[in-house]
This record gives sequence, C-alpha cells and structure tokens, in this order.
Amino acid sequence: MERRKFLKGAAIGAGATALATPALAQGGKTMTIVSTWPRDFPGLGVSAQRLAARIGELSEGALNVEYFAAGERVGALDVFDEVASGNSQAYIGADYYWTGKHPALAYFTAVPFGMSFAEINAWCLYGGGMEIWDKVQDQFGLKGLPAGNTGTQAGGWFNKEIESADDFKGLKMRIPGLGGQVLSKLGASTVSLPGGQIYENLVSGTIDATEWVGPYNDYFMKFYEAAKYYYTGGMHEPGAQLSLTSNKSWWSGLSDWERAVITSAALEENANSYYEAMALNGEYLTKLVDEQGVEVRSFNEETWDAMGEAAQEVFEETASYDALAAEVNDAVQAKMREIGRGISLFEGQFVNQRNRILDL
Amino acid sequence: MERRKFLKGAAIGAGATALATPALAQGGKTMTIVSTWPRDFPGLGVSAQRLAARIGELSEGALNVEYFAAGERVGALDVFDEVASGNSQAYIGADYYWTGKHPALAYFTAVPFGMSFAEINAWCLYGGGMEIWDKVQDQFGLKGLPAGNTGTQAGGWFNKEIESADDFKGLKMRIPGLGGQVLSKLGASTVSLPGGQIYENLVSGTIDATEWVGPYNDYFMKFYEAAKYYYTGGMHEPGAQLSLTSNKSWWSGLSDWERAVITSAALEENANSYYEAMALNGEYLTKLVDEQGVEVRSFNEETWDAMGEAAQEVFEETASYDALAAEVNDAVQAKMREIGRGISLFEGQFVNQRNRILDL
Repeated sequence: MERRKFLKGAAIGAGATALATPALAQGGKTMTIVSTWPRDFPGLGVSAQRLAARIGELSEGALNVEYFAAGERVGALDVFDEVASGNSQAYIGADYYWTGKHPALAYFTAVPFGMSFAEINAWCLYGGGMEIWDKVQDQFGLKGLPAGNTGTQAGGWFNKEIESADDFKGLKMRIPGLGGQVLSKLGASTVSLPGGQIYENLVSGTIDATEWVGPYNDYFMKFYEAAKYYYTGGMHEPGAQLSLTSNKSWWSGLSDWERAVITSAALEENANSYYEAMALNGEYLTKLVDEQGVEVRSFNEETWDAMGEAAQEVFEETASYDALAAEVNDAVQAKMREIGRGISLFEGQFVNQRNRILDL
Repeated sequence: MERRKFLKGAAIGAGATALATPALAQGGKTMTIVSTWPRDFPGLGVSAQRLAARIGELSEGALNVEYFAAGERVGALDVFDEVASGNSQAYIGADYYWTGKHPALAYFTAVPFGMSFAEINAWCLYGGGMEIWDKVQDQFGLKGLPAGNTGTQAGGWFNKEIESADDFKGLKMRIPGLGGQVLSKLGASTVSLPGGQIYENLVSGTIDATEWVGPYNDYFMKFYEAAKYYYTGGMHEPGAQLSLTSNKSWWSGLSDWERAVITSAALEENANSYYEAMALNGEYLTKLVDEQGVEVRSFNEETWDAMGEAAQEVFEETASYDALAAEVNDAVQAKMREIGRGISLFEGQFVNQRNRILDL
C-alpha cells in the first residue's frame, strides 16, 4: 500500500536521484539500471540498490547511475526487452524469468539439483561458465555478470505436511521455472506469480503452498499466516544467482576502467548478498519459530528420491530444445560433478563432522 | 631455484613497476603493499598480486600501488611490523601468523572446528565480526579487510595411514597455529615452517607429515614424492581467510572514495580466490591421483572425535589469555552456531541429498 502510494506520487527519476553522485554526475555517462525487485524490498531489492549506488560511488560519478525498481520505469519482467533494445543500459534480475526467450537462461540463475553458491561462481568465473553464458545472452545483445545470490532456497511453505511425493498430487503451488516442472511431474499444479501477488493468493486459498527464498527474505512476506509448515533446503534453487546484465553494444563501448568498476562492484555485491542472507537466515528462522509458531520440517529421503527422478526428465526435455541448450546442460552437469566433488571432499566432509561433533 | 635466482637479480621495485598504472601513477598517493607469499606462488601469491593490480586499476592510478612479495622488501613474517610502523601502507597475509602478538588474531584467519568461507564472511561482514576484528587490530594501529580465502584445507600429507588418534603419537608434522596445538595434545610433535622449507624437511625425513592448503595449491609443492597418503578436509583450517591490512592512520587519512576502491577490490578478490580454489581442487585432485599415484583418505569418526575433544582444551586455553581473547572466542563460538545452523538446514541439507542422489 505504502509502496503503491509512493510510486504513484513519485516522478520517474526520484529514486535515481538519491543514488547518483550529484556533484560529479553532470558530465557522467548515463547508466540506467532497471530491476525486477520492488523498491526497498528486504534482501533482493536492497541488494540491487546497494549495487547501483556502489557503481556510482566507485566511478566517482563518471558513470551517472539511475536506478529504477520494478514498475518505476518498466514492469519487473519487461527489463530484459528494455535492455536488449538499448532503451536502458542494464538490468538487475534473475535470468530464469526469461526461459521463454531461451530455456538455457535458467542455468545461470538456478536449476533443480544444480549448483550451490560456491559451485556456480567457481564454474562461471574459473571454470568456463562465463563464456557459455556470454554465448546464450549474445543472441539477445546482452552481457551479464554475477551480481547477487540467495544461497540455497527453502523448500517452501505448506498448509499440510509433505510426508511422501504423493502429497504433491493435486497441490496448487507457486513455484516457477524448472523446479515447478519437477513438481508438476509429481502431480502438483504449479503456477508462477510475482512476489507481490503471492500472499493474497495463499491467504485466499487460490494456492495451497509457495516457495520464495529463505528465512530472512521470507519473514517479511508473512506466508506463515496461511501456511505453517516451512521446509528446509529444497531441490529447486540451490544457489540462485542474480545478474547485472548490460546492453552488449553499450558495454563494448565502455572503457576498460569503466568495465572494471562495474565488474568489481557486481562481484562484491554478488558475494555480499549471499553473506547477508547466510548471516541472517539463522536469526530469522528462530524468529519465525518463536514469534509465529512456524513448524520447520525437512523432506524425507523418499521424497527427495522422487524429486531427483523427475528432475532427470526435466533436464532431458530442456536439453532437447536446441544444440545450445544441450551444450549448456552438458557443461553444467559435468562441471557440477567435478567442482561439487572437490567441495564435498574438503568443505563438505569438514562441515558434516564439525556439525556432528558440536551438534549444530 | 629459479625463484631464488630471480629474486637475487631483481631490483627492489621490479615487481612493482609491472603492477602500477604507469601513465597515471606519477601524481598518485603511494600504497606500498608487502606480502607473506613468494612472487608468482600458485594460488596465494597470484591472488595477492591480482588484488594489488586491481586496486591500482580501479583507482586509475590515484593510488600508486607498489607490491613486494615475501623477501623483496621485508621477510614474510615481518610484514606485520612493517605496516604497524607505517613503513609500508598495507600487507596481504594470514593474521594467524602473528598470534604471538595476540592470540585472538587466529580467529580472523582460521581456528580448528571453526568457520567455513560462507560463515566467516557472514560473521565478519553482516554479523558483527568486523567490529571485533577492528578492536583486536587497533591495539597495533592496523585495519584489516577480508581479501582472500583458501576454503577448507586438506587434512595433510602423511607417509602412513592415520587409522586412529593414536597414530598421531610421536608423529613429526608441520602444522602451525591452533591446529598444531590440537595435534600436540594428541601426542604429535608439531612444527611451523614457511612454505618454502616444507618440501626439503619432508624429503629428508626431518618431518613425517605436513599440511599446506588443498589440491590446487598443494599440487605444485610435490609433497607426494615423500608422503603418499593425502587426507581430505581437516579440522584445522575450515576456511582460512587472508587479509589486506592497512596502517590505520594511513587508512583514516584516505578519502571515502579511496577506501571504497580498496574495499571493493579486496572483497572481490576475497571471493575470487575462493572460487578459483573451488574450481580447481577437483581437477588437481584427479591429477594427483592419476599422475602421481596419491592415495586419498578421510579421517574416521573416532579420529574426528579425539580431535574435537582436544580442540575444546585449546579454545579454553586461548580464551584465558585476556578479556579480549575471551570476547573474541565467545563471539566466534556463538555466531558460528547461529550462522552455521542456518546454512546446514538449507545449503547443507540440499547438498547432502543431491550428492547422495547423484553419487557425487
């Protein structure tokens, strides 16, 4: 409500003014950033605004950054076309919103049974992933950078316990992307709704269940008012990566220094957004349980196995779309195993033993 | 050998010249960085050089960065005093090398059964850790930033299998810091040797075992020539954080923009060094096994339990040093549990289930 009122009254540039560096911005190169997140949205929105401000700050105003939250310049899901057309210079969002443009875009945000934060970044930055991402985005005249990560998302909010894969049958759940396709194969009726519409649909009973992000982000959504069972780590978004994606011809026309400034700010925020969620998830999970009586549950192995089988079918279908989709899927499956095995033998074994001994 | 020859012949500034931005550096503010790592050392040394170059690049020469590897200006372990005295502006190294100055410095690199990469960064940047680090370093006129991370280190290289904690008795092992104290309590005779001296001591039999970093970093050390058993994730350094630590009075005299440039570059490299190790550990572990016949082993639960008990004694001793050491230890133990539990319920549960199903 408050937000809608603000948007209605605000001049287009009002949000941007606060973020630019006024003293130096006059002569700067304009970098208009449009985002998929509402203004001041806890977690995702705040992170995007922090990144826009950081680019302006590091460039000392040589890049005159104007930031528009969802709906302030174009609608959340219209930012892709807005930047591809060159009308704005960059977007901050989740590339899997545009799998309708090309299904391989999902792999650069998150896919079921896919990569964690460490894995997707190791792959993108030091394992050849960026080159493949470039190839996928190049079709649309875009150039992306990792610019945020939610960490492994929660399994979701349910108004009943999920005791086996059968409990998904007939369940109406908000879960977008390939994760939604996995649950559809198990008999769920899945829908994709923007963040701002989930609560009303859950409370009215139009949907029975929803996933969003994790304890810190979810706390503010008040889903616990209609669905009290909250599931820990799900299969659908193991480390959802957000991107700062620029219009490629604009990006190519920048100086090396300008590209370095944008890259450094994006990679700093990419990690910071993850650290922030990891720092706060534990605290907000405790608040959800203690203040709101939320019941925390984990899917059992039988349910995990059923989701794993369904995910294999989804990958086969996705890879059959075209040669590029097959190339991306093959690269992700191979690199995830190579990188993931290394992490599992060192960090994974340590953490499992430590948590056992210290009873974490 | 080659490295020694190079160092002998090189003028002091030779390394620095290549990293500055020559066209603009003339009028810049000098930032002399001294490091604990040898020049071009795979992993750690390369990462430190990349950070120094990035600061120069992002500042467009306003900061005229001169980088000196270990021994080029002062010895590796002398960089702390060099920067505290104001003779150089910053060091890149591991703060736990100077636990002789104050034992709490160990907690900002790594302690046994301590924090992973995600946990230490969540704590430092969004959980109050930076404020406590500031307090510890302030005693010496220093101000640190996270600037690199090795991920969870390997348990080490041994010339026999470790089948129970008894096998540590009488073992001569290179393992520094609090991790070394843990193994000492189990009867090992532990020593601390700089990286460049480990190989000769292992080959000559002066030591029986050593730890270093992980597969990617260790590959180049050729320890497999004398010790063929390589242990996966150990208890001693779960996510060793390296720092870019500045002389505090110099840091305070910088402009907000200069501090932003240095911070962004440090946090970018902090994450990049971790991604790089995670990307390459799997590949280099395969090389070690296939090319060098290395035998990969994991400590069993009984051995882990014994190390866990010994670690508790080490923490009690460390915390009893003074009030500040107690404050740091208490903060780390509490925040590690809060943050670590959150990560375990989401990322941890997902990764364990995925790895089980996909047989990673």
